[in-house]
Amino acid sequence: MSLQTRVLRARERMHELGVDVLLLSVGADLPYLTGYEAMPLERLTMLVLPRSGEARLVVPRLEAPRLTPQDDLFEVVAWDETDDPVALVARLVGTAGVAAIGDHTWARFVLDLQLALPTVNFVRASTVLAPIRMVKDGDEIEALQRAATAVDTIAREMRLWTFSGRSETEVHRDLVNRMIELGHERANFAIVAAGANAASPHHEPSTEPRIAPGDLVLCDFGGTMRGYCSDITRMFAVGEPSSEVRDTYAVLQAAQEAGVRAATVGTPCAAVDAASRRVIDDAGFGDYFVHRVGHGIGQDAHEDPYMVAGNDLPLEAGHAFSVEPGIYLPGRYGMRLEDIVVATDAGPRRLNEAPRDLAVVG
Amino acid sequence: MSLQTRVLRARERMHELGVDVLLLSVGADLPYLTGYEAMPLERLTMLVLPRSGEARLVVPRLEAPRLTPQDDLFEVVAWDETDDPVALVARLVGTAGVAAIGDHTWARFVLDLQLALPTVNFVRASTVLAPIRMVKDGDEIEALQRAATAVDTIAREMRLWTFSGRSETEVHRDLVNRMIELGHERANFAIVAAGANAASPHHEPSTEPRIAPGDLVLCDFGGTMRGYCSDITRMFAVGEPSSEVRDTYAVLQAAQEAGVRAATVGTPCAAVDAASRRVIDDAGFGDYFVHRVGHGIGQDAHEDPYMVAGNDLPLEAGHAFSVEPGIYLPGRYGMRLEDIVVATDAGPRRLNEAPRDLAVVG
Repeated sequence: MSLQTRVLRARERMHELGVDVLLLSVGADLPYLTGYEAMPLERLTMLVLPRSGEARLVVPRLEAPRLTPQDDLFEVVAWDETDDPVALVARLVGTAGVAAIGDHTWARFVLDLQLALPTVNFVRASTVLAPIRMVKDGDEIEALQRAATAVDTIAREMRLWTFSGRSETEVHRDLVNRMIELGHERANFAIVAAGANAASPHHEPSTEPRIAPGDLVLCDFGGTMRGYCSDITRMFAVGEPSSEVRDTYAVLQAAQEAGVRAATVGTPCAAVDAASRRVIDDAGFGDYFVHRVGHGIGQDAHEDPYMVAGNDLPLEAGHAFSVEPGIYLPGRYGMRLEDIVVATDAGPRRLNEAPRDLAVVG
Repeated sequence: MSLQTRVLRARERMHELGVDVLLLSVGADLPYLTGYEAMPLERLTMLVLPRSGEARLVVPRLEAPRLTPQDDLFEVVAWDETDDPVALVARLVGTAGVAAIGDHTWARFVLDLQLALPTVNFVRASTVLAPIRMVKDGDEIEALQRAATAVDTIAREMRLWTFSGRSETEVHRDLVNRMIELGHERANFAIVAAGANAASPHHEPSTEPRIAPGDLVLCDFGGTMRGYCSDITRMFAVGEPSSEVRDTYAVLQAAQEAGVRAATVGTPCAAVDAASRRVIDDAGFGDYFVHRVGHGIGQDAHEDPYMVAGNDLPLEAGHAFSVEPGIYLPGRYGMRLEDIVVATDAGPRRLNEAPRDLAVVG
């Protein structure tokens, strides 16, 4: 879908929802519609896209040279260091009744705009854009596939890496560097969690202690490649794992498989979560699977739709999301297994194909 | 200053300003007060700090294991995937009249909290915390010095690097890796801009074309080391520069020196900007210095106080900030020179000491 078509679709939804103007700053909404990403700094960048009429991109003068001309998408309005960009946006918004503002916009700009526009009702921009962004077209799925293939390559290489004696942060750095070398423009995260650290699902890699024989190591990494995100989790056992670990891992792998198989068009998102959870519950690990099974993925690493209890949204062809159950035993070990999946009319399609077994490494 | 003392100071200011509760999420305010940094994700982390009474940190259950116990600083309130964290925060806020919310909090949480707390007046948390965070104590200046010394080391090494034939992105990667190797926990940015690209102050490094003899290369890089930020800009000429470039650089260096010298305690921030700007104006380049001369620095790469026209705040001992004038000639070349400076009672103190001349490289 061209940027022009995306803008057209956004305007159709603004019309349906009674939204007069879209205000987009930091986050993926802006590049989704314009190809331009705002810098996450204190100088305001904001697209002012009215339901009809010309769109304007308000941008700090010193960042204007970053823009590549996008024919007809928007007019550039550069502001100088002593100008008030909030007043500038407020003038462009004019007499709007409802403004949809980007979900990641900084609070300071929301509060300042509310003061400058006291009669405007502010709502989340995701009410307009999430349903559009959620359904990926062919080009977007191809972009997600390219990013997935790059991290698959790394996951395969890792089966030959030496983990023992290295720190989590060293492995983390190698993951970041390999993502960049294989074409990602940035690494978004690279969780490396060994031994009991892996019982913390979002563990921050640490320099001490060193990874040791007997450790189970959780590696969850992803980045952005040509604008679209990768995200994969694989597990590595340093030396032959115990039969308990093997058995627990078998439960995890079965749970992940069940989640993927459940992800057919028309199935509610909640049912994908439930399918994985049932396998883990039945094995007696229910209390140790402390998060939803997955999140949507696209230009954002986490976006709609979320595979979580309570989300009754039926899967559509083109929805792309992670399926990543986990089992976390506090003080002992943790494990997670994750692929990116696209719902298609021919059934769920995994984008990641790196081996899913528990890799035994040195 | 201990975290406990910082909280005490924050509460004193809340009292002065009539703020009933502080709500902190992503950004540096939260680690400044608690040592804990919120993950910038869709799951809400929020410190609820009332003017008196117990503080609570609302945190997603799966991230609770990331917390190291901070005696008496706050109680942890973990929420499950199907809980509503906004409703949880709203209950903790209770009957507050004025809530100060972190400046970087995502718009979606601001809007949701406003709906859940319709009678609460929301203001920026920086009204409470910026005056406290701005004035660095001895430990903080030491932390900034350590980070500055690390990037100074890199700036010195770069005088021996080969630039010609490499891409901006390759040099960018080397800068990121060196920052990590020298003790930064993360690189925040590494602008590498060669030739005409350097006329774009916030240029994004590109893979093409390769850096070539005759290019002037702007390198502006910084990261976070033990919680505090570095930020330095140095200029590199690939081969002997023209006398025009040498002359322009002499203006820039004089302007930077004038800005630093002006940064004495009691001087308004605006006067630091004016001191640098006067030198550039007098040399006829005024139209090509398109940004303020500096920004505060601490746990945030950019924070108060800003050295910009219109900011009448007088410098205090302990204010830490950049002095970084630039001259940008569209289509031709650009240059910037930057040090971090601390205002002290004995006069301005530069934290960066890497040579400031135009380095000639291969």
